[in-house]
Amino acid sequence: MQTLQTTSLRVSQDQLFILDQQALPQKKIWLPADNVDALVEHIHALRVRGAPLIGLSASLLLALLAERGAGREELALALARLRASRPTAVNLMNNLDRMKRALAQADFVPALIAEAERLVAEDKQLCERIADAGSALVTPGSRILTHCNTGGLATAGVGTALGVIARAHQQGNIANVWVDETRPLLQGGRLTAWELGELGIPYQLITDSMAASLMANGQVDAVWVGADRIAANGDVANKIGTYSLAVLATFHGIPFYVAAPHTTLDRHCPHGDAIPIEQRAASEVTGVAGSFGAVQWAPHDAQVYNPAFDVTPAALVSGWVLDTGVVSPQAVAEGIFAPGH
Amino acid sequence: MQTLQTTSLRVSQDQLFILDQQALPQKKIWLPADNVDALVEHIHALRVRGAPLIGLSASLLLALLAERGAGREELALALARLRASRPTAVNLMNNLDRMKRALAQADFVPALIAEAERLVAEDKQLCERIADAGSALVTPGSRILTHCNTGGLATAGVGTALGVIARAHQQGNIANVWVDETRPLLQGGRLTAWELGELGIPYQLITDSMAASLMANGQVDAVWVGADRIAANGDVANKIGTYSLAVLATFHGIPFYVAAPHTTLDRHCPHGDAIPIEQRAASEVTGVAGSFGAVQWAPHDAQVYNPAFDVTPAALVSGWVLDTGVVSPQAVAEGIFAPGH
Repeated sequence: MQTLQTTSLRVSQDQLFILDQQALPQKKIWLPADNVDALVEHIHALRVRGAPLIGLSASLLLALLAERGAGREELALALARLRASRPTAVNLMNNLDRMKRALAQADFVPALIAEAERLVAEDKQLCERIADAGSALVTPGSRILTHCNTGGLATAGVGTALGVIARAHQQGNIANVWVDETRPLLQGGRLTAWELGELGIPYQLITDSMAASLMANGQVDAVWVGADRIAANGDVANKIGTYSLAVLATFHGIPFYVAAPHTTLDRHCPHGDAIPIEQRAASEVTGVAGSFGAVQWAPHDAQVYNPAFDVTPAALVSGWVLDTGVVSPQAVAEGIFAPGH
Repeated sequence: MQTLQTTSLRVSQDQLFILDQQALPQKKIWLPADNVDALVEHIHALRVRGAPLIGLSASLLLALLAERGAGREELALALARLRASRPTAVNLMNNLDRMKRALAQADFVPALIAEAERLVAEDKQLCERIADAGSALVTPGSRILTHCNTGGLATAGVGTALGVIARAHQQGNIANVWVDETRPLLQGGRLTAWELGELGIPYQLITDSMAASLMANGQVDAVWVGADRIAANGDVANKIGTYSLAVLATFHGIPFYVAAPHTTLDRHCPHGDAIPIEQRAASEVTGVAGSFGAVQWAPHDAQVYNPAFDVTPAALVSGWVLDTGVVSPQAVAEGIFAPGH
């Protein structure tokens, strides 16, 4: 297989490596992800994360396993296990559906390799097109609030929402980025802050609870987020806290944009209530843990509720910014995301 | 001076001790607060916190300093320094105004001691009356969401918002308490979780970003918070994140109650914009630190915005639950909090 390098994925000497996103920004550690067990564990531990990136890493691993001589049945089993590793993100399912079709071909080894490489190349293109479409919506001097991490770490390219921000910065239109820390796993405080620093884009880190008062004080011009799944009616599943921002933006009359590749669209999911929401461990809320250390502050017997995602109804979204262009609330209401469109 | 013991204050052998609220719940450490420098440092570090408690600790220290022989001028200086230690909370100013009048008396030593003891006794009574008034608003089977810490740790008595919840629990009306962790300083995750556990009240800890989706899913019947200052028009300054909850509650049609003693009322402050908001250190947002340990996850050069409080406009408040009873939005609009009422 070709050598490949993105911000957070590497294929080198026919081995897959992932950049450990739980170790960033303190440590840049490349970990091998050379079998299904290892990659599933990386996904569960959010060492690989970002809806697009999860799909790509799973596809690359399948291609490498095929190249190493795994049989069709073994690969089908691997595909099924990878498919189940993250129930909310639909890009994984979409990518693996394409890998499944490649696996059905007579000459499935080169087919799988070609398909995985195509998915990576396409994702880069998708990011570019999202940035093209989205940056046209960013007005000069914008103060943009974003949540979680949607950049080069979450995709093979420049990112989704963060790709839009980066492009708008190149165009001279970004005055400041408000970075929600994104408890419990701090993808904003760790990863987005790090990416923006690397890109030289001015930002200020806040806790998730500060967004509302910034909006009330006229300090936020738009909210940009990514998506883990978009239902046929336009409802959006994304990192917990996204819905909160959508309500706050609506209340304050601030545009709320969702940036995602079309692979995030699930036309067969009628609405947000049908999207499964992963519940995660109590320990993520009772404290924090990572390469930076581990502490627990809550009482040892604290009861915890910890959904990883929430659902934002379509009515609160100002625009769905896809690689195919900006989709308006009217177009969504008219069924542009429905099956057959 | 009389021996005195509350959940978080102790006067013993003419010395003032405070329960270190940065050490809870891992460690129960009583620290001496025997001079102005020490107490101001405890207040800045939030080892003593809670608007009512800050006012009481400052008043008790002044009484003890008088008892030990400090002169009138020295005491006036001490009073001025204590008054400036926390600009947002107005109970401190209100309590110290009463201590100042005691200091003006000919026989100021017994006057200061009597006034400080009276303030503590009154605070307990105020908490009881708030609990009386507030618990009448709690319907059977309530799932209540609360923010920060407003319990026995924040007052000399049963607390404000948490006192209402405790009383409603005794009355059999609490099904569950959703505890916002309250980043950055985690007063919910550390202190409220601990207090509710001690009281045997069922609770679930969440991150601040999860409140919105719980509301959307019909899991929250009411929001109860405390206050650091209530302006004459009913605007409420309270821990950062309170305004966010008020907007979310309003959007979802959920009652939003503010519980506070009348000493939190600042009739001379016309509206929320006139309330000074303390900005705090970046290190509180780039990581966490306490007796549980200290870690930093954000990039070392991260820019941070960290206001300690936000302002909730009166229009979003369903009721102001004071020791004098429940004040309605109509009464507030008619000027019940204005000077002269």
